[in-house]
Amino acid sequence: MLSTITLFTALTLITSLLTTTATATTIPTSTQTTNPQPPPLSYAILLFRAFDLLDVNGPLSPLQLLAHSYPLTLSLLARTLDPVTTRPASPSMNPHNASFWPSLTPTHTFATAPENLDVLIVPGGLGSRSPDLEPEIAYLRAAFPKVRYLITICTGAGVAARAGVLDGRRATTNKRAWGEITAMGPGVRWVAPARWVVDGHIWSSSGVTAGLDLIYAFIKEMYPDGHELAATIAGGSEYEPHNSTYDPFSSLFNVPTQNQL
Amino acid sequence: MLSTITLFTALTLITSLLTTTATATTIPTSTQTTNPQPPPLSYAILLFRAFDLLDVNGPLSPLQLLAHSYPLTLSLLARTLDPVTTRPASPSMNPHNASFWPSLTPTHTFATAPENLDVLIVPGGLGSRSPDLEPEIAYLRAAFPKVRYLITICTGAGVAARAGVLDGRRATTNKRAWGEITAMGPGVRWVAPARWVVDGHIWSSSGVTAGLDLIYAFIKEMYPDGHELAATIAGGSEYEPHNSTYDPFSSLFNVPTQNQL
Repeated sequence: MLSTITLFTALTLITSLLTTTATATTIPTSTQTTNPQPPPLSYAILLFRAFDLLDVNGPLSPLQLLAHSYPLTLSLLARTLDPVTTRPASPSMNPHNASFWPSLTPTHTFATAPENLDVLIVPGGLGSRSPDLEPEIAYLRAAFPKVRYLITICTGAGVAARAGVLDGRRATTNKRAWGEITAMGPGVRWVAPARWVVDGHIWSSSGVTAGLDLIYAFIKEMYPDGHELAATIAGGSEYEPHNSTYDPFSSLFNVPTQNQL
Repeated sequence: MLSTITLFTALTLITSLLTTTATATTIPTSTQTTNPQPPPLSYAILLFRAFDLLDVNGPLSPLQLLAHSYPLTLSLLARTLDPVTTRPASPSMNPHNASFWPSLTPTHTFATAPENLDVLIVPGGLGSRSPDLEPEIAYLRAAFPKVRYLITICTGAGVAARAGVLDGRRATTNKRAWGEITAMGPGVRWVAPARWVVDGHIWSSSGVTAGLDLIYAFIKEMYPDGHELAATIAGGSEYEPHNSTYDPFSSLFNVPTQNQL
């Protein structure tokens, strides 16, 4: 077995490599982004009862690895500081009375959330259809004009649509839940097929795992060394990100082609 | 906008479909598993400081959807009931002083963990290399003879190797961390290339996102209607699971071929 000192030396080296990658980009390359804005540093994620664990943690895992190269902050926002459970609110949504529902504990309420966030992420999940999302929708509507980027994952686009912030914008959502979610935003220019869609400062992904592909594309676009960092993080995570046109699920779920990419 | 009643009717229908899928399998089909054991119902996941969020939540998200069809239970185990942070223990592992480290709150300590678990999941993450894992390793060593299935994700195989429970068994781990992790288990028959490896009741996955592929294979194998449920869950999650031979990362990270699948 390796000594613990050796282990930590190896780990430090890996971190150093990531850090070095983050700072060794003064020479422009063909893959370098031309985004002139400062890179996003302050992230928040909007939590509500019965959010999907992967909608939230799929993007957060690569961002945590990015946080080895940038001083990122993450706020977990909810209506109160009580833990937010993934247990569905209605017993009919849990017909076998399963007990498989971890919680996340918020860092801020909507009332105490940081102002002027760089990125606000809205996940989906069974809870995104709840009629009891008024505090979440009110926060989203109020915060939207002040955030630099809004990211929706999966049926989180339904929450954003209910807040009205997607009206007139191009967006996508989960293809199995397509009819249900798009009905929440008749003024939205819903796009299919698409793995994810960018319209100005609004990024929206298709279902659940599409959030991983969106966040890799976001990292590439937003950070000066984003292409290199995304490749490093994806390699260590053993993930090959899809591009925005990958979408076998639109045809699987008979979603009609509209507002094409 | 759909009325809330319509929304919940639609949601109930989706759940009913999942439930129906779970019970309408009395007719054997070519895809039906022949596993004669009762399906696993009690799951636990071993948490330690600086676990990877996706190692944990990648498998948990599909299992939560499976919990619409089976009365699954999930225990979150740790040395104490304090929230387990993803923040690395060493400041050198957080060189930019980022603040991007959600916690999970355990449901049990190792001392109060349920006995005779069906499935114990060991995730990886930076913390899997920590010298300070004695309570976790002691628990794993003691619980291993009593669990029906052990699942390791990513560098979680290193934790299991340090507990000695992989000795003489075939297993795999993260390909970027290959040398570091395999050195923790010189008695393990490490397998590469491989997306995941099954040796008896031990299932081990490659890095991070490979945990998703492993859990879909596990669902297919373990539940009478597993193939149908896995397809339904993967479709709704917009995920196309890889098979066990998918592994572009072994060559990417120069991992030599050994103990082939």
